[in-house]
Amino acid sequence: MTSSIHDPSVRGFASDNYSGVHPEVLAALADANGGHQVAYGEDQYTQELERVIAGHFGDGATIFPVFNGTSANVIALQSLLPRWGAVVCAASAHINVDENGAPERVGGMKLLPVPAPDGKLTPELIDMEAWGWGDEHRAQPLAVSITQSTELGTLYTLKELRAITEHAHGLGMRVHMDGARISNAAASLGVGLGEMTTGTGIDILSLGGTKNGIMSGEGIVALSEGPAESMKYLRKMNMQLGSKMRFVSAQLLALYGTDLWLRSASHSNAMAAKLSTAVQETDGVDLVYPTQSNGVFASLPNAVADRLRERFRFYDWDRSAGEVRWMCSFDTTEEDVDSFIAALKQELAAQ
Amino acid sequence: MTSSIHDPSVRGFASDNYSGVHPEVLAALADANGGHQVAYGEDQYTQELERVIAGHFGDGATIFPVFNGTSANVIALQSLLPRWGAVVCAASAHINVDENGAPERVGGMKLLPVPAPDGKLTPELIDMEAWGWGDEHRAQPLAVSITQSTELGTLYTLKELRAITEHAHGLGMRVHMDGARISNAAASLGVGLGEMTTGTGIDILSLGGTKNGIMSGEGIVALSEGPAESMKYLRKMNMQLGSKMRFVSAQLLALYGTDLWLRSASHSNAMAAKLSTAVQETDGVDLVYPTQSNGVFASLPNAVADRLRERFRFYDWDRSAGEVRWMCSFDTTEEDVDSFIAALKQELAAQ
Amino acid sequence: MTSSIHDPSVRGFASDNYSGVHPEVLAALADANGGHQVAYGEDQYTQELERVIAGHFGDGATIFPVFNGTSANVIALQSLLPRWGAVVCAASAHINVDENGAPERVGGMKLLPVPAPDGKLTPELIDMEAWGWGDEHRAQPLAVSITQSTELGTLYTLKELRAITEHAHGLGMRVHMDGARISNAAASLGVGLGEMTTGTGIDILSLGGTKNGIMSGEGIVALSEGPAESMKYLRKMNMQLGSKMRFVSAQLLALYGTDLWLRSASHSNAMAAKLSTAVQETDGVDLVYPTQSNGVFASLPNAVADRLRERFRFYDWDRSAGEVRWMCSFDTTEEDVDSFIAALKQELAAQ
Amino acid sequence: MTSSIHDPSVRGFASDNYSGVHPEVLAALADANGGHQVAYGEDQYTQELERVIAGHFGDGATIFPVFNGTSANVIALQSLLPRWGAVVCAASAHINVDENGAPERVGGMKLLPVPAPDGKLTPELIDMEAWGWGDEHRAQPLAVSITQSTELGTLYTLKELRAITEHAHGLGMRVHMDGARISNAAASLGVGLGEMTTGTGIDILSLGGTKNGIMSGEGIVALSEGPAESMKYLRKMNMQLGSKMRFVSAQLLALYGTDLWLRSASHSNAMAAKLSTAVQETDGVDLVYPTQSNGVFASLPNAVADRLRERFRFYDWDRSAGEVRWMCSFDTTEEDVDSFIAALKQELAAQ
Repeated sequence: MTSSIHDPSVRGFASDNYSGVHPEVLAALADANGGHQVAYGEDQYTQELERVIAGHFGDGATIFPVFNGTSANVIALQSLLPRWGAVVCAASAHINVDENGAPERVGGMKLLPVPAPDGKLTPELIDMEAWGWGDEHRAQPLAVSITQSTELGTLYTLKELRAITEHAHGLGMRVHMDGARISNAAASLGVGLGEMTTGTGIDILSLGGTKNGIMSGEGIVALSEGPAESMKYLRKMNMQLGSKMRFVSAQLLALYGTDLWLRSASHSNAMAAKLSTAVQETDGVDLVYPTQSNGVFASLPNAVADRLRERFRFYDWDRSAGEVRWMCSFDTTEEDVDSFIAALKQELAAQ
Repeated sequence: MTSSIHDPSVRGFASDNYSGVHPEVLAALADANGGHQVAYGEDQYTQELERVIAGHFGDGATIFPVFNGTSANVIALQSLLPRWGAVVCAASAHINVDENGAPERVGGMKLLPVPAPDGKLTPELIDMEAWGWGDEHRAQPLAVSITQSTELGTLYTLKELRAITEHAHGLGMRVHMDGARISNAAASLGVGLGEMTTGTGIDILSLGGTKNGIMSGEGIVALSEGPAESMKYLRKMNMQLGSKMRFVSAQLLALYGTDLWLRSASHSNAMAAKLSTAVQETDGVDLVYPTQSNGVFASLPNAVADRLRERFRFYDWDRSAGEVRWMCSFDTTEEDVDSFIAALKQELAAQ
Repeated sequence: MTSSIHDPSVRGFASDNYSGVHPEVLAALADANGGHQVAYGEDQYTQELERVIAGHFGDGATIFPVFNGTSANVIALQSLLPRWGAVVCAASAHINVDENGAPERVGGMKLLPVPAPDGKLTPELIDMEAWGWGDEHRAQPLAVSITQSTELGTLYTLKELRAITEHAHGLGMRVHMDGARISNAAASLGVGLGEMTTGTGIDILSLGGTKNGIMSGEGIVALSEGPAESMKYLRKMNMQLGSKMRFVSAQLLALYGTDLWLRSASHSNAMAAKLSTAVQETDGVDLVYPTQSNGVFASLPNAVADRLRERFRFYDWDRSAGEVRWMCSFDTTEEDVDSFIAALKQELAAQ
Repeated sequence: MTSSIHDPSVRGFASDNYSGVHPEVLAALADANGGHQVAYGEDQYTQELERVIAGHFGDGATIFPVFNGTSANVIALQSLLPRWGAVVCAASAHINVDENGAPERVGGMKLLPVPAPDGKLTPELIDMEAWGWGDEHRAQPLAVSITQSTELGTLYTLKELRAITEHAHGLGMRVHMDGARISNAAASLGVGLGEMTTGTGIDILSLGGTKNGIMSGEGIVALSEGPAESMKYLRKMNMQLGSKMRFVSAQLLALYGTDLWLRSASHSNAMAAKLSTAVQETDGVDLVYPTQSNGVFASLPNAVADRLRERFRFYDWDRSAGEVRWMCSFDTTEEDVDSFIAALKQELAAQ
């Protein structure tokens, strides 16, 4: 079974995790192969990754590679909370809507979701649920979780991030960033990864990889004091300790040990911008959220969307509102976008 | 970071997960790359894997790829149990001693360990904890978990497996097999994978991959009716649903869609047998368990073991008893074993 | 320590669980004392309670006494759900705001709260979260939980209850009623306990007791097929199996085996109505929700509330909105209400 | 339903929780009734109980009343452990065999049971599982749980207790005592409650009440620094916060605020001693464990036990070994024991 059984020429706009692996990442896997390396993270690739991460996020930063984003989020949050803790998050947050209750069921935490129309929390929104400390009847709100870039493709500015962390810290709460698409955010804002996280007072980060061209792997990056010692136990008991970790670390090294993270994210952002521009210039389709990273959210008639979907795969976002999501990836080409725009215009005209 | 930072010529006998990836598996990853594939398991590689698995285990068998063995075990057992269920297992079982309580903490189950000097359960040993149904004070023993090959390198014969499943089923219990090293077992017994599992009445299987030369990935294989519908939810909520699943499936396909599983396992078994023979012929070192798969358990003076360990990495198994474990892998060479035996004899002579 | 160390003449309007025990309940405890009875629910009082409950709720109804309302809710919901289940509830529901995440942490379920300004769900509100079945990323909404009377003192009519259960059942969901104050609801509606629950299609009920004059104890009442066999295990593993259960059952018998439930609830309702009437007739204080059971929700200046609170204990409900809650109990007297109204008028006048 | 529906003259030897409530406790409940008291533990009875507990256990001791012993054990242990903690206990411990996995399922902890033929741990037995700190694969053994008096009716001497706590503390572990029958132990040893707990270095105690003549209630008593602040959250989230707590506290006050705990325990011990003496003097029946508290464990032919059981209720302990358990209670009379011995002799003679 060592030949392709799929058509590698087919690409769509369904998700950045429909794409495969960047060739540099694949090469890194080959380079990491051969010989024996200590399992469970004491290998040389993980050690090198630790150095690279400290370079990005500061000397106090420690990375714990895990398999996927759901677990990065759950374990990161668990490390911030006592058993009675709760997490204020946007109602649209991935942890609230896309993880089948893993934060609650496995992490044992309560989420306190607040409505955030553009996917972004603010100090005022946080205050909707940040209260009741000391009252044992209330799950204690001791952490805030934000997503950068958000599930709606929007971005927090550095100033907005600082306002959140200062507010949260002032309340005795700690701040987690779900950075499944952190590279897209940093690329779009034109800032460094550390500047956007450690520099704004984030306490712990889910460092994405898979959505930006690696095969499988995310990192929990502890940015502030404390969670490093507990993390190794939390990771293991939550079933996220990989034995041949050198291969997860090698992928993250290929991404973050070079400028690949930035190149790939800048590219997918640019493809989304191109598509967004076309949407804004085309009658019959409208932008729903500003396009600030690699996702375009548009409204158009469901019938048009359905015909278009026969040619390019993508998802409805909110069918009742006629909203769709078009994601660009590291491997999305200019031609892909041009073809898609052409098809969109055809289908709009055909209605 | 796209070049080796480790010495690929170094190999030892510490664990079969210290080794890297078989070249055929690496090639399969490259073949699966490119283009877009539906995420979360609806890709063509996972579909093909399902066909291959049905070929091995029967038409009723369904596979759910996950990231690692701990989660395969926990989710498989969870699918067999109500919330109040308990699992009879050997005290030495991986689920009992090496998973930081994940079965209990994440799976919410109670383990009922019984002493099993050679790592193998029997109907009589199962009966030590298989009682008390209907008594709500007692965690209800509704599943048995066995490991093939065991943590001690020993094997259940097909007859022994059938005795266990018949006994368990007669008591209303279901049987899980931890098959982290199932290929070594099948190769050693000279039987097919299905013959050893479906054929002996096993209900659900953790199908190993990582320890036999893939990078990362295990499969939960439901062999009897029932768990398929629940499994997709259990996998997701337990944080084990990979987005780019085509790459896990491609690895498992490379292993089980060809005879690679058998070739690799037969080889590591043969290397262990070669080492075992030398141990049995050498004064000052003794075999602790019969060598039936790819692990050799030996007793020798701790001081000798420590000097030997400076040259080849391996673990103590029970230092108080002077017992060590030497694992062979798909990439262990005849020369590795010869060198190791020579070193062993030198160190024994030097004491 | 066998004499009163408190002043039994002090009563307030803080909560119906600030009150003590109805004399008939205390007498029942004495009657149940003496001799030996089988522990853990196989005693004669629990058997008699089962008959009484079947009389109220139908022959298919089964009761499982537990210690308190939180656990009744969590265990009842757990019995309706697979491990991946979620519960649609009002954002103001006790399970969502007052149980420190016990449903999530101990029950392992996800809550899907929807805004319900008067504390009541409707089919339309349920539909806000009742979707996504079959999508493993989404915690599966398989139960609805409603509270009767609600946390805001409002009531569902029988017609509204039927609309909810029919809607939920049509979607494959089951319906739990948190009946911490079920007697107040039935008394207010002038219907029987079974008519309001079994008769409207409710699947499982948390049958309150403590808030209506018993010392400690609630019942999980399974109204539809299924959960009885699992309940005994769920109750025990959730640490709610009382050893000397005869005394919990004797209390519930004293309440539901006579008309005490109705007498006490009618009385506390009447006291609330009296207070509500006065509120509506008094300037400077307004009713926030209609008074349909034993709680009065009023708005008045915080300064007035604070001065009033020096004389009668009660809680703010929403201080930012100047809302308070005044609860009446089985032992609230006409004189208590008269004194309270007089004090309220004095403090309003004094501002 | 305010009259007895059982025969209060029937008593047996099945369990100390088959008995009812001591008259002084019932009187205390009546005294605590009437008027309004703050719910959830801020009442005057709970405050008085705190003073009484400090008198027994020292100024640093804090009590948190809960409903039953299972929850006292689980919550107490949870307060000692991080999420990855494990508890070394005797295989026969109640937490291991009689709580349907509540410590694992609700508490999220792993138990590490060791065989203890007489129900008692020793430093050597603890060492069987006290190892592996720092290894994330192993659930970290950070607490020891012992039972005083044990499930087998045996007792730790103060010296033995000190040896355990010193050993455990030296290893960085903390020590929990399951004191469901602590009064029987203290009475038998002739020592004070504090002397046997705080005085021997115990960190946290499950203070029994129900088995010594109260209706329902146990206390978690934190003896060393730390857990008090976390306990209120743990108690609530684990569904053990009683609303009308004054009545639990009043019961515990009746027991521990007078010498009732000692009178009742001394009596049940004396009844057991009387029965034990008769067993030792009678042919055909033998003592299995020394009778050191209120339980007598005897071996006799199953057929004899079965005939005897038709007249007096009691349980088999290990039917395969012909072992039974006869428990005495605060209300067991001399005549009860005399009648039972006479019946035993009759049935032995009749075989």
